[in-house]
Amino acid sequence: MHKKLNIGLVGYGFMGRTHSNAFARVANFFGVPYRPVLKTICARKADRANAFAEQWGYESFETDWRKLIESPEIDLIDIASPNDTHAEIAIAAAQAGKMVMCEKPLGRNPGESEAMVKAVEAAGVANMVWYNYRRVPAVMLAKQLIDDGRLGKIFHYRTVFLQDWTISSDLPQGGEGLWRLDASVAGSGVTGDLLAHNIDTAMWLNGRIGEVTAMTETFIKSRKHNLTGKDEPVHIDDASAFLARFQNGSLATFEATRYARGHKAQYEFEINGENASIAWDLHDLHRLQFFDYRDEGRVRGWRSIHVTDGDQPYMKQWWVPGLQIGYEHTFIHQVADFLMALGEGKSAAPTFRDALQTDYVTSAVLESAANRTWVKIPAGLE
Amino acid sequence: MHKKLNIGLVGYGFMGRTHSNAFARVANFFGVPYRPVLKTICARKADRANAFAEQWGYESFETDWRKLIESPEIDLIDIASPNDTHAEIAIAAAQAGKMVMCEKPLGRNPGESEAMVKAVEAAGVANMVWYNYRRVPAVMLAKQLIDDGRLGKIFHYRTVFLQDWTISSDLPQGGEGLWRLDASVAGSGVTGDLLAHNIDTAMWLNGRIGEVTAMTETFIKSRKHNLTGKDEPVHIDDASAFLARFQNGSLATFEATRYARGHKAQYEFEINGENASIAWDLHDLHRLQFFDYRDEGRVRGWRSIHVTDGDQPYMKQWWVPGLQIGYEHTFIHQVADFLMALGEGKSAAPTFRDALQTDYVTSAVLESAANRTWVKIPAGLE
Amino acid sequence: MHKKLNIGLVGYGFMGRTHSNAFARVANFFGVPYRPVLKTICARKADRANAFAEQWGYESFETDWRKLIESPEIDLIDIASPNDTHAEIAIAAAQAGKMVMCEKPLGRNPGESEAMVKAVEAAGVANMVWYNYRRVPAVMLAKQLIDDGRLGKIFHYRTVFLQDWTISSDLPQGGEGLWRLDASVAGSGVTGDLLAHNIDTAMWLNGRIGEVTAMTETFIKSRKHNLTGKDEPVHIDDASAFLARFQNGSLATFEATRYARGHKAQYEFEINGENASIAWDLHDLHRLQFFDYRDEGRVRGWRSIHVTDGDQPYMKQWWVPGLQIGYEHTFIHQVADFLMALGEGKSAAPTFRDALQTDYVTSAVLESAANRTWVKIPAGLE
Amino acid sequence: MHKKLNIGLVGYGFMGRTHSNAFARVANFFGVPYRPVLKTICARKADRANAFAEQWGYESFETDWRKLIESPEIDLIDIASPNDTHAEIAIAAAQAGKMVMCEKPLGRNPGESEAMVKAVEAAGVANMVWYNYRRVPAVMLAKQLIDDGRLGKIFHYRTVFLQDWTISSDLPQGGEGLWRLDASVAGSGVTGDLLAHNIDTAMWLNGRIGEVTAMTETFIKSRKHNLTGKDEPVHIDDASAFLARFQNGSLATFEATRYARGHKAQYEFEINGENASIAWDLHDLHRLQFFDYRDEGRVRGWRSIHVTDGDQPYMKQWWVPGLQIGYEHTFIHQVADFLMALGEGKSAAPTFRDALQTDYVTSAVLESAANRTWVKIPAGLE
Repeated sequence: MHKKLNIGLVGYGFMGRTHSNAFARVANFFGVPYRPVLKTICARKADRANAFAEQWGYESFETDWRKLIESPEIDLIDIASPNDTHAEIAIAAAQAGKMVMCEKPLGRNPGESEAMVKAVEAAGVANMVWYNYRRVPAVMLAKQLIDDGRLGKIFHYRTVFLQDWTISSDLPQGGEGLWRLDASVAGSGVTGDLLAHNIDTAMWLNGRIGEVTAMTETFIKSRKHNLTGKDEPVHIDDASAFLARFQNGSLATFEATRYARGHKAQYEFEINGENASIAWDLHDLHRLQFFDYRDEGRVRGWRSIHVTDGDQPYMKQWWVPGLQIGYEHTFIHQVADFLMALGEGKSAAPTFRDALQTDYVTSAVLESAANRTWVKIPAGLE
Repeated sequence: MHKKLNIGLVGYGFMGRTHSNAFARVANFFGVPYRPVLKTICARKADRANAFAEQWGYESFETDWRKLIESPEIDLIDIASPNDTHAEIAIAAAQAGKMVMCEKPLGRNPGESEAMVKAVEAAGVANMVWYNYRRVPAVMLAKQLIDDGRLGKIFHYRTVFLQDWTISSDLPQGGEGLWRLDASVAGSGVTGDLLAHNIDTAMWLNGRIGEVTAMTETFIKSRKHNLTGKDEPVHIDDASAFLARFQNGSLATFEATRYARGHKAQYEFEINGENASIAWDLHDLHRLQFFDYRDEGRVRGWRSIHVTDGDQPYMKQWWVPGLQIGYEHTFIHQVADFLMALGEGKSAAPTFRDALQTDYVTSAVLESAANRTWVKIPAGLE
Repeated sequence: MHKKLNIGLVGYGFMGRTHSNAFARVANFFGVPYRPVLKTICARKADRANAFAEQWGYESFETDWRKLIESPEIDLIDIASPNDTHAEIAIAAAQAGKMVMCEKPLGRNPGESEAMVKAVEAAGVANMVWYNYRRVPAVMLAKQLIDDGRLGKIFHYRTVFLQDWTISSDLPQGGEGLWRLDASVAGSGVTGDLLAHNIDTAMWLNGRIGEVTAMTETFIKSRKHNLTGKDEPVHIDDASAFLARFQNGSLATFEATRYARGHKAQYEFEINGENASIAWDLHDLHRLQFFDYRDEGRVRGWRSIHVTDGDQPYMKQWWVPGLQIGYEHTFIHQVADFLMALGEGKSAAPTFRDALQTDYVTSAVLESAANRTWVKIPAGLE
Repeated sequence: MHKKLNIGLVGYGFMGRTHSNAFARVANFFGVPYRPVLKTICARKADRANAFAEQWGYESFETDWRKLIESPEIDLIDIASPNDTHAEIAIAAAQAGKMVMCEKPLGRNPGESEAMVKAVEAAGVANMVWYNYRRVPAVMLAKQLIDDGRLGKIFHYRTVFLQDWTISSDLPQGGEGLWRLDASVAGSGVTGDLLAHNIDTAMWLNGRIGEVTAMTETFIKSRKHNLTGKDEPVHIDDASAFLARFQNGSLATFEATRYARGHKAQYEFEINGENASIAWDLHDLHRLQFFDYRDEGRVRGWRSIHVTDGDQPYMKQWWVPGLQIGYEHTFIHQVADFLMALGEGKSAAPTFRDALQTDYVTSAVLESAANRTWVKIPAGLE
């Protein structure tokens, strides 16, 4: 009945698992026009690739991603490998006429990202970037409320992404699991890894950012590198914060760090509008905080909305009211939306082009921090 | 301008301090028709009485409460001494034509309490019992919402009063500060000390209780007694819980204990109605939790109301929105209401008669626990 | 590599989905010695059975559960159909030598449940009842803390299960999705549906319950019945509350209702011990509240533990710290534990025998409510 | 017994009330060596002054503050009048040999503030500025934890002060109650009114700020002026945010606004150190959030400390554990500390000199916002 969509996955790490789970589960819960098939997994080491294929039920494995691109059986290339591989794989996949999904950030810098956008658009292939937090039901509900005008004019946007996993100076950099600390692979530190999420959500909810002023810090200046075995300078930003003005006139503060003790993955945002405010955080992702000034005065207060009801985004497909879902479901939702759009011949947001705009902001943030000036955000690729 | 109201206080402990503070502060914040004057404090030991008078600004002190009652200068006798003294002092004060305020519980048992009610009513003197939690602004707001019909038909009432200060078996009983562990002085344990608060609030908010079934426990069977210096059996209830049916058909659970580790004074209640629910707790007394089913479905949630605005009960008299008040203010509010009522020639609730009804319930709870049966609550004193 | 375990599922409702998901996903995340195969789904209506098989990837479907039991291909019968079918199917399956998993409650009454225990034990087949909440990571962590003696002597157990989905009198009873309101099918109302969960967890964490005193209420006395089309008396309990004494001397309050406005599936428990206390609730199931009296006094407080780290139960298998899982994962964990035990030739808890003990308590609760007396809990089946 | 300290208060508004309450109550709760006497209140309008004197029990009133300064009966001048009066009164008072307390901010700009510092130091009089939030018990506990080294090296400081009371464009500026919107009186908007609190606390807890980059916004450009009756340009900053580097190498974000719907007076800070983190907010000022990485891993979590115990700052003087105090108590604590210091011949912090340092930062913030550059903070007055 369902049309099949054959997936070729590159990468077997944390994101390889979240994507595989999403492809495997989506049709159990969503009435999608395509049914993803876990066709081939590609990883550099054969034993890892094989074990992953076995665990997740991929039909085969490869150790060279070019094989996936050459294969006529593969419909879609999904890139879940480190950042320094994104551009090359995505461009080759697009040129081969494959649909492409790519982990965020798109490239390591706007130059890479622009080339990727051009490649998928020239090829006319469906494309999407895994900014998964848009598909948290509570975040999608926030989007609906803003689009419905419930907040009125927006004055403030406030967002952080706080982690604490790199505080120890004994933690090495580089190689498997730790490439995020190696700037040559990752592109940047928390700016590209964490703030990119904050920025993607923010521009989706509140429109374009006009200009920024930023500061960054590398608290631990050198770490042992796993590939060289030697102590090497750390080039990523451990912490990054910036002030911004949106094009709609609202003000914002953004901050991300891996040195905020007590926070594992504390992504938070709050939006203050003339009539209402919204707040959300990832540690309780199934809740949305909502304050509506138009409630009667004496019983006005922040509402803690447990986003698990059938009239709330995505939740009709899951269990019954009160029963929460978690992190991995955001990926399932994203695949569902991608497949629905595909059924209509469209790409689902965020496309490569959408993700490029986020890269312009992260790049401006790094530039501002280096130059100690305000930096304006480019209008976008022609 | 203001008429003066001369206060004679009996007792200098914790409650002596809260009452003195209330009398001293009320006119700074409330436009009351009478201004309390801290006239005389009575305590058994002269040095204590003197020190208390000095600290709080009482004009004089006594060591025999009968002197206060005989004094033509005293308008109102306020009883803040241990429970075994309430009846005798209150009855004597009423017979001498003094107004009487009394700490809760009214008497040690319904017999004492009935005599006290008869005395004040025979004398026609203003009287009030210090069930102070009615005057928490958030609790008063709950009362308004219920009285306005916002909850609709009420199905459930759920309340606890949890403390943890008597867990150690080294804690002695009896004497100053610890008479609450001596049944001969206190009357009962947590049933009269804590559940009395739960019951007073519950009947005020939800009407009369019809019947109860209860269990009590004394976890530590004997403790050193401060007055005898010897290990003595403990006769109070350390924990007490009961099921109840209200006359309006709603069901209830009540529980109090001094063995709930992690709770210092956790008085909580929740009320579930057809259309809305309310919850409150003493550890954040300035907040009311409110759920309104008539809110739009997708943004429905418990509202955390920060009860600090001018349109919320009592708060116009304090600071500005967002700035919280605390525990002691409940006593100030109670004095304010008492004085306002006095200006109109009335007693403010809860009167001795109101408090007697609570004693009927606590007595039924103890009887039920002893007999392992359901017990009906008397209709009230003729 | 993996041994296969062929599943025959009876029932395609809410629980049919949670179980299917658990069987389908377990091997993606857990290194289990058996890999479940979704072999056959059985439902009374062929179109429903077929659609379910298609959606979840079952290899075939049946409309008569006896076919599954007769099939040599099926290793394990999983019962997710209404309560009135549990005993018959389970006994037949055991007699046919199949392993049996059964949704809770085991039978509609202890008589049915005893027969089921005898059948599986006589047949010597692996058996388990889906009291899934034991496998919430935070709840399992609570179990570890208690077993490690971190709480010390336990004084209090306090638990509720609050819902609000049956408040409207327009809601009919009976038939698909609503058989839980029909006592002839469900056995009882919230006592068997909700309190059974509270009781199972409580006895697992705190040992056997000795005696109870209870009250129940049916707020809406008659509802339209979907099968007869007529208004019929409602025989289930809409609300049920009881006081209990555990064999270890601790006191408890239990309450469940479907009339607590504002609560969708609010299962909560709190345990107060001499040295520490624990609290948990289902609306934020990935958090455990923990108070440790042995922390330094001035910085002592309830800790909100975000149970998402690798050293916390089950979480090593999921994502990274800070990323929460949800409701459905409890079923995956239960299957994982079942398969691990099976690998060692054992049944995983709770077995049918464990679940029978819960039925003794629910039965005593209903008896106590009817007779208005304390009721002792039987010691257990010989 | 107690020495008396005669108070002359200038100003009868919100702050006049909090200060009067503090002077009147301090000796009831704290064993202070001086007992404040409410001697004279000064306000421009005689009827207001008289009414305030009556309500609070001042012995007399004046309409010209110079009379207070000339009076030999007055020991201490307390300035609670609008910001544009601070410098003149404080300098005159110091020159007359009076002790001086002053509401924050000290002056409207560093120039005024420097003159004030010089005046009190030249005169050698005790002086203090009412940065009251230092004396919240939870905040003082945070100070103790930091000073004890519990946090280790500090990486991040994050603080906001959010209000929503000026969102309506109908709100006028100027005159009584609204002078905070008139830059000529207030000096600045939220930078001096709100951020000054954040900065004072931050430098007290975490040391000097080195440099800042800021942005400010005036959302509503003109408002009716109460004194002219005409629509006038608004010159204050409605919102102000800045990035900062502390001298100890930690990074910070600061933000204040009166356009954050849902927040009445939400002053928050969070501090992330190597070993522990701390968070606090004014809407639940009696709680401190504390995360200690040295807790055992599986039970690590943010502790919600209910700061109401006798071993926590200031709380021994109040009620019993679990019973919270509120906003006004911070002023009582500040007077208590002032009087204790006075007994030892010292000034209590924050002195005028301490407050000047905060003014340097607020001035740098405004300069940075105007010039769009990073601005360094001066080292301090010689």
